[in-house]
Amino acid sequence: MLREMLENVRKKAPRIHCITNYVTMNDCANVLLACGASPIMANDEAETAEITALCDGLTINIGTLSRQAVPAMLAAGKRANELGHPVVLDPVGAGASAFRTETALQLLSEIRFSAIRGNVSEIRALSSGACGTKGVDANEMDQVTAENLDRCAAFARVFSEKTGAVVAMTGTIDIVADAARVFLIRNGHPMMSRVTGTGCQLSVLTAAFLAANHEKSLTLQIQQPDRRSVDVGNQLTAVAAAVCAMGLCGEKAYQRLTALDGNASYRNYIIDAIFHLTPEELEREADYEMR
Amino acid sequence: MLREMLENVRKKAPRIHCITNYVTMNDCANVLLACGASPIMANDEAETAEITALCDGLTINIGTLSRQAVPAMLAAGKRANELGHPVVLDPVGAGASAFRTETALQLLSEIRFSAIRGNVSEIRALSSGACGTKGVDANEMDQVTAENLDRCAAFARVFSEKTGAVVAMTGTIDIVADAARVFLIRNGHPMMSRVTGTGCQLSVLTAAFLAANHEKSLTLQIQQPDRRSVDVGNQLTAVAAAVCAMGLCGEKAYQRLTALDGNASYRNYIIDAIFHLTPEELEREADYEMR
Amino acid sequence: MLREMLENVRKKAPRIHCITNYVTMNDCANVLLACGASPIMANDEAETAEITALCDGLTINIGTLSRQAVPAMLAAGKRANELGHPVVLDPVGAGASAFRTETALQLLSEIRFSAIRGNVSEIRALSSGACGTKGVDANEMDQVTAENLDRCAAFARVFSEKTGAVVAMTGTIDIVADAARVFLIRNGHPMMSRVTGTGCQLSVLTAAFLAANHEKSLTLQIQQPDRRSVDVGNQLTAVAAAVCAMGLCGEKAYQRLTALDGNASYRNYIIDAIFHLTPEELEREADYEMR
Repeated sequence: MLREMLENVRKKAPRIHCITNYVTMNDCANVLLACGASPIMANDEAETAEITALCDGLTINIGTLSRQAVPAMLAAGKRANELGHPVVLDPVGAGASAFRTETALQLLSEIRFSAIRGNVSEIRALSSGACGTKGVDANEMDQVTAENLDRCAAFARVFSEKTGAVVAMTGTIDIVADAARVFLIRNGHPMMSRVTGTGCQLSVLTAAFLAANHEKSLTLQIQQPDRRSVDVGNQLTAVAAAVCAMGLCGEKAYQRLTALDGNASYRNYIIDAIFHLTPEELEREADYEMR
Repeated sequence: MLREMLENVRKKAPRIHCITNYVTMNDCANVLLACGASPIMANDEAETAEITALCDGLTINIGTLSRQAVPAMLAAGKRANELGHPVVLDPVGAGASAFRTETALQLLSEIRFSAIRGNVSEIRALSSGACGTKGVDANEMDQVTAENLDRCAAFARVFSEKTGAVVAMTGTIDIVADAARVFLIRNGHPMMSRVTGTGCQLSVLTAAFLAANHEKSLTLQIQQPDRRSVDVGNQLTAVAAAVCAMGLCGEKAYQRLTALDGNASYRNYIIDAIFHLTPEELEREADYEMR
Repeated sequence: MLREMLENVRKKAPRIHCITNYVTMNDCANVLLACGASPIMANDEAETAEITALCDGLTINIGTLSRQAVPAMLAAGKRANELGHPVVLDPVGAGASAFRTETALQLLSEIRFSAIRGNVSEIRALSSGACGTKGVDANEMDQVTAENLDRCAAFARVFSEKTGAVVAMTGTIDIVADAARVFLIRNGHPMMSRVTGTGCQLSVLTAAFLAANHEKSLTLQIQQPDRRSVDVGNQLTAVAAAVCAMGLCGEKAYQRLTALDGNASYRNYIIDAIFHLTPEELEREADYEMR
C-alpha cells in the first residue's frame, strides 16, 4: 500500500507551499524536488493566501518564528482549509518558549491540520499547553522507547482524536497515529539527528504525500506481517509512507558513508536517496507494525 | 568572445551585492565565490544603499519577498543606478501573486536594470502586467520549444527594447536578447530544474559577468558557426556568457553523477564546475546561435 | 591542553543559541552538530531571552542584519550575561555600513562578550569606531602577515583589554589574544575563503568551545615547542582550540579534494572533518606559537 503512496507523488507532482524556517529552507525545497514534488516558499502575509491557492498542500513550520510570520501562517492555513488542501504543522521548538508554544496553540485552534509532525516533547507541549521542553530536541526522558511505547502510542491516538490530524511523533521509534490506528515505524538511523532539518524535511515530504493521496474518506486494507488485514485510513497511510520513506533514506544514505564522510555529506546523501527511492523499495523495506 | 568575459570575472573579482531570497542565499554566495567574484548579502533599508556603493554590481531577487524588502530593494537599485553599477532583476514567481507582480513592476519602473533573468512565465507576467503563472516554474504552455522559438525570441527583443535591459529568458532553450540581437543557447541539462535555485545562481552570475565586463557602449564582433561575423553589444555578450557558463556547468556536473548521486550532490557539483570552469572551455563548449 | 577543550565539547554537548545571518545558518547548525554541540536558532525579540536561558552559550552574528534583529540580540545578550553564559560576537561586515558598525558598537557597549571573532578590518572597525572596510573581506592592506604580525598581536591584546573579551582576529595567520597572552595560529587553508561562512562557522564553534570549557578563572599551563611552560587563561585556550580546530579541518578537507571538487564539495568536507576530528589530532596537529 505504501508503494502507491509514493507512486502518486511521482505521478501527480504536487506543488507544496512551505512557510518554513530559515535554517532548513533550502533542504526542504530540494527534498520536495527529490521526491517529485515542487516547492514554493512564501512567507509574507501580503501573498501567503494567494500563493497557497496555487498549490496542492501547505506546510507550516515554526522554527525561527517571527511575529510577522504568524498572520502570514494564519492567512495561508485558513485559505488552504477553505480549498480543502492538506496542511501539515511542524511545531519546531514548541515548549521551548512561550512565543512558540502559544503560536502553535493558536495555529491549532484556527487551522484544521491534516497532520502534525514533531518530536515527543513538541507534541507533548502542544497537548498539555505546558512548557518544559529543552529546546528543539526531545528531552531524553521523552524519547519513545520499547518501554514507553504503548503509553506513547495511546497518547498519540488521543491527540489525533482531539485535533483531527494524523499525529506523527518521530524519534528512535516513530509513531504515526489517527484516532483508530497506530503505525510503529522502525526505519531511520540515529545519525539523522546529527543533520539539521531532517524533521523539517519530513514535514514537507508529509505534505507532498498527503497532497498526492488526498482521498480523505478512503479506507485501505493493509496486510500485516502476520498476514491479518486491517482497515487503515488513506491519510494515515500517506503520512506513514512519508515517515517510512524518510527513515529508509536515512538508512540508505548511512550505508553510503565513506570513512571521511560526516554529517554534511550525510545531509546530501539523504536527499539523494529520496531522489532515487522507488515505490518498490519503499514497499519492501518499510519497517513498521500496526496496533 | 565568451572567453574574455569569464577571464574578466576571474581577473577583476567583482563584488556583488545580493538582495536575494532566503532559500538560495547560501548557494548564491558560493556560486559567486566559485566564479571568482565576491558576495555581500544585505537586505535592510538601513544599509542597502550604502552597501551597494561598496560593490561593483547588484542583483535583486524577489523570491521569499517581504514588504520590508521592497524599500530596501528600491534604495539599493537607485543608488546602483546613480553609480552606474549593473543591476540584475530576478523576478522569481512574478505572476504567482499580485504582491510579486506589482513589486516587480514597481522595481522595473523605478530602477534601470542592465539585465532581467527569469523563466518565460515570469518574463511574460512582467511584460503583460497580468497574472496567470502557476508558481515559480514556467507553465508547460510557456516553455521555449523549437516550435515557438521565433515567437519567444521576438518577444524577448521587444521586451528588451521596452526596458533597456538585456533579457535572459531561460528554459529548455535559453534566449538572451537585446533590442538588436538574440542568442539562442542550448547548454544546460533538464536535471537542473530538480535543484532549487539554479535560476537564482544564474542571476548573481549574470551580475558578476556584467560587472566585470562593464563597457556599455562597446560592440563586439562575434564569428558565428557559419563564419559570418555579427556585431554584438558587450552587455548582451556578458549575459550570454553567464547563461552559457551556467548551462555548461550543469552539463559537466551531470556527467559527474554516480549511480547514487541525486539532486543534492548535483547541486554541489554544479557549483564545483563553476569553480573549475576555464575561459577556454566556455569558449569551446558554449552551444549557441545568433539571430 | 587543546585536547581537553574538544573532549569537553564532545562530552558536555553544549546547547548554543545562534542569532546569525541567513546566508550561513544551515552551515552553522550543522557545524555545531558536527562538533557534538546542539544548535538553536531563534531571532525574534519575542523569544530570544527565553531561548537563550535554555542554552549554554550564545553567538550573535550581524551578517544580513535587520533593524528588528537588534533588540532581539540585545535581549538575548543581556540575559546570557545575567546567567553567566559565554557570548560570542561575530561583527560580520562591521565598517561596511554605518548600520553594522553602530550596531556592533551598541552590542559591545551593552553586552559583555566572552569572545569577539572577526577579520582584521572588522575588528579594526570596532576598535576605531571608524569606517573603511571594503565589505565583508579584510582589506588587502589589512591582512595579518609576517611583516605586521607584531603590530597586529599588540593591537589584539589592547582590544581584548579594552573589551574584556578574548579577541580572535582571523586571516592567513590567526591571532587569538587576551590582555596577557597571544596565540599565533597557522592552521587553515587559503581555499577556506572561497566558501561562504567559514568565519560564521568558527564563531559558533567558538561559543561551543567556551560553553564546554567555562571556568573563567582557571589558568592552564601550556608547554610550548621550546618546552617552556606558560600560564594561559582557560577562556583564551578554549577560543584558540576552536580556531585551531576550524583551521585544521580546513586543511584536512583540502587534502580530500579530488580533481573535480570545488568550493561546494569543500564546504561539505570541512564540516565532515569537524565531525571526525579527534581530540588527539587537534592536540597533535594544532600549529600555534604563543607570545
